[in-house]
Amino acid sequence: MVKNTGLIGRINSRLIFLPMMAIGFAANAGNQPTGNSQWVDPFIGTGGDGHTFPGAVVPFGMMQLSPDTAALSRGVDPQAEIYKHSAGYHYDDNTITGFSHTHFSGTGHSDLGDLLIMPMTTKANQKPHIEPGSAQNPDSGYRSRFSHNSESASPGYYSVELQDYGIEAELTATARTGMHRYTFSREGEAQVLLDLTASIYNFKNKVIWSDVRVLDNQTLIAYRATNGWAKQRKMFFAIKFSRPFDSVELINQDNTRYRCNGCLTDGAANKPSTIVNSTIQTTAGKAIKVLTHFNQANKSPLLIKVGLSAVSRSNALQNLEQEINHWDFDKVRIDAKNQWDQQLGVVDAKGDATQKRQLYTALYHALQAPSIYQDVNGQYRGVDDEIHQAKGFTNHTLFSLWDTYRALHPLLTYIAPDKVSDMIQSMLMHYQQSYDNMLPIWSFQSHETWTMIGYHAVSVIADAYLKGIRDYDTNLALKAMTDTANSPVYDAINEYKKFGYVPMDKLSESVSITLEYAYDDFAIARMAQAMGQTAISETFFKRALSYRHVFDKEVGFMRGKDSKGQWNPDFDAEEAKLMGPFTEGNSFQYTFYVPHDVAGLIDLIGGDEAFTQRLDLLFSKELSHDKIKEHEDIAGLIGQYAHGNEPSHHIAYLYNYAGKPWKTQQRIRQIMDTLSSDKPDGLAGNDDVGQMSAWYVFSAMGFYPVAPGDLSYALGAPQLPEISLKQSNGKTFTVTAKNLSAKNKYVASVTLNGQPLKRSFIHHNDIVKGGQLKFVMTDKPNKGWGQTTAQRPPSLSHK
Amino acid sequence: MVKNTGLIGRINSRLIFLPMMAIGFAANAGNQPTGNSQWVDPFIGTGGDGHTFPGAVVPFGMMQLSPDTAALSRGVDPQAEIYKHSAGYHYDDNTITGFSHTHFSGTGHSDLGDLLIMPMTTKANQKPHIEPGSAQNPDSGYRSRFSHNSESASPGYYSVELQDYGIEAELTATARTGMHRYTFSREGEAQVLLDLTASIYNFKNKVIWSDVRVLDNQTLIAYRATNGWAKQRKMFFAIKFSRPFDSVELINQDNTRYRCNGCLTDGAANKPSTIVNSTIQTTAGKAIKVLTHFNQANKSPLLIKVGLSAVSRSNALQNLEQEINHWDFDKVRIDAKNQWDQQLGVVDAKGDATQKRQLYTALYHALQAPSIYQDVNGQYRGVDDEIHQAKGFTNHTLFSLWDTYRALHPLLTYIAPDKVSDMIQSMLMHYQQSYDNMLPIWSFQSHETWTMIGYHAVSVIADAYLKGIRDYDTNLALKAMTDTANSPVYDAINEYKKFGYVPMDKLSESVSITLEYAYDDFAIARMAQAMGQTAISETFFKRALSYRHVFDKEVGFMRGKDSKGQWNPDFDAEEAKLMGPFTEGNSFQYTFYVPHDVAGLIDLIGGDEAFTQRLDLLFSKELSHDKIKEHEDIAGLIGQYAHGNEPSHHIAYLYNYAGKPWKTQQRIRQIMDTLSSDKPDGLAGNDDVGQMSAWYVFSAMGFYPVAPGDLSYALGAPQLPEISLKQSNGKTFTVTAKNLSAKNKYVASVTLNGQPLKRSFIHHNDIVKGGQLKFVMTDKPNKGWGQTTAQRPPSLSHK
Repeated sequence: MVKNTGLIGRINSRLIFLPMMAIGFAANAGNQPTGNSQWVDPFIGTGGDGHTFPGAVVPFGMMQLSPDTAALSRGVDPQAEIYKHSAGYHYDDNTITGFSHTHFSGTGHSDLGDLLIMPMTTKANQKPHIEPGSAQNPDSGYRSRFSHNSESASPGYYSVELQDYGIEAELTATARTGMHRYTFSREGEAQVLLDLTASIYNFKNKVIWSDVRVLDNQTLIAYRATNGWAKQRKMFFAIKFSRPFDSVELINQDNTRYRCNGCLTDGAANKPSTIVNSTIQTTAGKAIKVLTHFNQANKSPLLIKVGLSAVSRSNALQNLEQEINHWDFDKVRIDAKNQWDQQLGVVDAKGDATQKRQLYTALYHALQAPSIYQDVNGQYRGVDDEIHQAKGFTNHTLFSLWDTYRALHPLLTYIAPDKVSDMIQSMLMHYQQSYDNMLPIWSFQSHETWTMIGYHAVSVIADAYLKGIRDYDTNLALKAMTDTANSPVYDAINEYKKFGYVPMDKLSESVSITLEYAYDDFAIARMAQAMGQTAISETFFKRALSYRHVFDKEVGFMRGKDSKGQWNPDFDAEEAKLMGPFTEGNSFQYTFYVPHDVAGLIDLIGGDEAFTQRLDLLFSKELSHDKIKEHEDIAGLIGQYAHGNEPSHHIAYLYNYAGKPWKTQQRIRQIMDTLSSDKPDGLAGNDDVGQMSAWYVFSAMGFYPVAPGDLSYALGAPQLPEISLKQSNGKTFTVTAKNLSAKNKYVASVTLNGQPLKRSFIHHNDIVKGGQLKFVMTDKPNKGWGQTTAQRPPSLSHK
Repeated sequence: MVKNTGLIGRINSRLIFLPMMAIGFAANAGNQPTGNSQWVDPFIGTGGDGHTFPGAVVPFGMMQLSPDTAALSRGVDPQAEIYKHSAGYHYDDNTITGFSHTHFSGTGHSDLGDLLIMPMTTKANQKPHIEPGSAQNPDSGYRSRFSHNSESASPGYYSVELQDYGIEAELTATARTGMHRYTFSREGEAQVLLDLTASIYNFKNKVIWSDVRVLDNQTLIAYRATNGWAKQRKMFFAIKFSRPFDSVELINQDNTRYRCNGCLTDGAANKPSTIVNSTIQTTAGKAIKVLTHFNQANKSPLLIKVGLSAVSRSNALQNLEQEINHWDFDKVRIDAKNQWDQQLGVVDAKGDATQKRQLYTALYHALQAPSIYQDVNGQYRGVDDEIHQAKGFTNHTLFSLWDTYRALHPLLTYIAPDKVSDMIQSMLMHYQQSYDNMLPIWSFQSHETWTMIGYHAVSVIADAYLKGIRDYDTNLALKAMTDTANSPVYDAINEYKKFGYVPMDKLSESVSITLEYAYDDFAIARMAQAMGQTAISETFFKRALSYRHVFDKEVGFMRGKDSKGQWNPDFDAEEAKLMGPFTEGNSFQYTFYVPHDVAGLIDLIGGDEAFTQRLDLLFSKELSHDKIKEHEDIAGLIGQYAHGNEPSHHIAYLYNYAGKPWKTQQRIRQIMDTLSSDKPDGLAGNDDVGQMSAWYVFSAMGFYPVAPGDLSYALGAPQLPEISLKQSNGKTFTVTAKNLSAKNKYVASVTLNGQPLKRSFIHHNDIVKGGQLKFVMTDKPNKGWGQTTAQRPPSLSHK
């Protein structure tokens, strides 16, 4: 470490905390171990397949300023490396290529990594690198070695020593602006490289166009459009240095031939005086880099501010200037920490450091997206690629809905209720701006990627509406939901409506799609019912039973069926293959996907005992790699159960519906113990934009929303002795777990506000009223508690 | 011809007009031979190197809908073909590839050709072409043979029979919207192809990105960005068909590999249900075409409307809907014709049909640009690539200033005075939006191309200001002019200010640049003087004498000089080479480029006689092709005089300054007779966005602005018996030429408002007051008239 602040800054990392380092806290504002942010370890999830990033971000911030460790600059990496670096950084790595400004948290597919910046020092007569070089030979490029021992991260802050250059690099952020602080320990010249060719999920031809312009010797503006997961995604940048650079090189490596062969005018095109004014410091093309030079680098720390905008260069500059109108890095850092402390303050937990690290880091990951996607002046780029002015809401983006409708969005109604309406209005604007007349499916940065299946935006809206979050045009919302669910252009809705299921000869993933449509239809029906829209409600309650059409009683599983009614002859309950009838899963898992009518599913499978046995089999029957080799997402296995991917997330809670809550309790603890930790590889699979973390938060509190929009929660087993949820209505809901220990993982008894609770379910209304949910834990299953199924949510067909 | 309208429509072409065709005029609205538009032949300039286009446009219209005849789709043509097709169409060709919506009129370098549309018919079981094919074998592609016999054009209208398909194609336009009418004579299926890969000055990699979306079965929206003369030029399109297509194919020929090698997710990327929703009719990439199918093509004419916008797809749609909210092709055509009649009505000419065709076609070409570049809602894309709202003016683009400051802009102050302020305000916005703090040099469509030399925007503004056009922020204008003339980043202004000339070791074209800076400085000085800004005026009058620094008295020519004061050792007065000291010209021509101080130049050269002899030598000494082979622009030669390029344009008028106006008269007639006609090849070189035409109009009226901003005009010899200029102040200025004939090309005498005029100059004030300028023509030089040089504009050094 080159100076104290960095070392002190890593108190929240998974490294051993040294008490003596507490000396200096007063002098190092912004990193005091106060507030709940102290428990957050941004490195959790950066190992394994978690795909989170360790960099600086504020809650729901558009700016995600974070180190990248893969050689992503114009390189084509083998598949494993690309997938592994979905968040730019991986904990296994020991070189850093630079710091870029946009990152997904936890996605499987990826994109972003906009504007990579790397500081360097060079010896006299040494030419600075402008290519990243290889991890095997870091000296071959601008990348630098680093060690986790001289790296730290806490909410809104990241620091690392770039060992090859003797530079301490620190990062912090506001909503739309990132701030870098580079402290040089060596004499001589330093450079800061801006690499507009670098990207996450990079490949040749990804950069469609880019440009950069020197406004003055402290200011650059830049732009780039990339064709990745999002098509022609546009991002504008404003870059300000805290002191003038001594010189600047605009490097254009675009060797595409842009002119005709043999044109006389081709020659003329190179004449500086008649076609290109070479004196003006601007360049454009598909491979642009900028090298700024600083003669006396170590005379004082060099700071850089970077403003982002998806609208325009002037907006990027305005975002920067309005959000950080000074050069006080520590102030920005403290502001970011304070935002996190406030946001994380909605949950008060008791427990040991490990438990609190896991819980608050999960909350931290759950509070990052959908993120702000709007400039300070209210302008944003819509899904129609037009510039819009937000009125009465803040536009948000990054709707990974197939993942996040399950637990993240239900959780946000408690921990960030003021954001829920913004998110819903952002989705309604998407609907209105969409040429397809649809709510988002999997969208980010003004692009609909059409990734994954279902139309789960309806679940998010219905759940919020039914919980009383209604400060948006609710009639428009219902119309958007039914329009989406009746879309004539999306996937196989036409056939679904015609046949009652998606025929497998029409579309791959037909069974998963049918099941998820059915759940979504339930969510629409519930909201329509609450709005008194009986006709809509009845139509969609009926559609919600569509799951029955793909259940083959013969084999007792969900199974592909074609348009002639013939079952899939190649049925294998364990097989998960691309283009098969299931989405990132097999029939074993998806047979349990009737979250809105578990009672009905139990009937289909043959009653509580058969259902329990099937669940037991799911958790015990080993899933061979051969069956799932086409899917990198299916991870975190317990038998067929795959905690690392979303289709399994509700399954452990289903025992409750068959009167066996103690089996749920046992599985939750098993998942907690074996598939989750406070280490970098502590996530069993992709965090998926906070869904995995939201699963953790709910499960740690002892309950889970099996069917969002139903408003009931299945009880599991709390994993911390006490968690209080401070709600925006002023009421606090506290869950305690008496006698909780490594051994005492079972629920002996439960009281709600002092009254014994016999059912293994609670309702949203129990939470919002505030109160005490007290568990008494024990080391043996209490098979007598919650065994009656009379109080489980009834079969949908009886509603 | 397949129907009457087409044939009747070509009355204005250079084909023989058959009186019997007058039958049917009443039934064919819009093509009556009334108004001055009847004399316009849009084919003039489409042959030779004129580079004009024959298609449909309204005065200063953003929409230039015109046929293209080169195989420009993704092809790389040899240089000659590319240059020849700067306007898309060339009269030599006999196949048409389609109709595109943007065209330059008369440029040497080129771009545009946005959204090529081609209608086709196919026989049963025949697959429609989607490639243009070759001119040698038109059947190899979608292009069609055509004949000039079944082609016609008049202002705002174009029609042609596509012989291979039996389709009559007609085009008309409003300011921002084009309308096609296709009349099919054959039974069976027809297609309309939209080729987003086609372009003018096309080459591989020109299309950066494009996309298209089917909104409904009559409506498409599309976008493309190209990297050509302008970098990342963006254009949005809205396309509406008059009846539904029966089917549509979105063809994506972009075979760029956009994903990583060996990614598992690469496979997933091709799953229709999870990454791309294949049902939704949209596609994007670098090579997009759309094929719409119509089963019964000949049941009625098919109409297509195309709206353009540089801002957004929604603006393109709004432009289309607001400008043409109906399907009445003839109404649009009549409206366009009426606009032309009104605009051309400012000049009333008497003369024979040939004379009127030349004059009104020249006016027509002079009234096309700078063109509107703003949507109906007032939004436009600025040179900063940001979207702006025009307030109090209409934004215009296409400032080919090195060409047009000479005669076009001075002419517009008379024939389109209401546009002059719009153009000046557009330039002032450019200045304010330019990161370089400069007025335009050679800009179009929100891009500064930095083509050619000087900073001639100052001439345009000064000339207008001094003529009393001042309805804009005049202080801002003067500041913009001086900021531009003092730019620290542009070309060699720093050295020019330091040395008094541009050193040839600093920059190529150094002599031309010095001479043109000096003239521009005169224009600034004149305006500052008129505004009472004495300090500025004095500075720039001094700078205006800089031409003297590059005149080598030893050789008697303008000559390159280096920063040490050494004359160019390789001097050759006739040589014009790329990267030499002159711009598209040689020293012979450029030595005469002191338009603002001809008296001073005469002194340098050695007095009136020496000057006259030098002019005589210029017009008589043959210029060998060897000397100019690097320049395709130097054309239209009389000796060293090159009428086809701008540096010569004022030279014939310089005899007046030496007291030899009869030699001017003789040369003007010679140029008129040998280098200009009413045939397709009637322009001696590029029309250069109306500059050549403006030279013609002034010269035909008998006077020419040798030094815009000086407000004096050198008299030549009228070429028509009478031309009246109706001015916006209600006053008419009429020039008559009594006894004018093929023989009588010399001026015998002149009266102004009845008073004998002895000087061979008039002043702007003589024109604006209205009145009669009467020439009496004769067959012998009157060497006694205008021989005194006392009344010529005095030497600048005496001012």
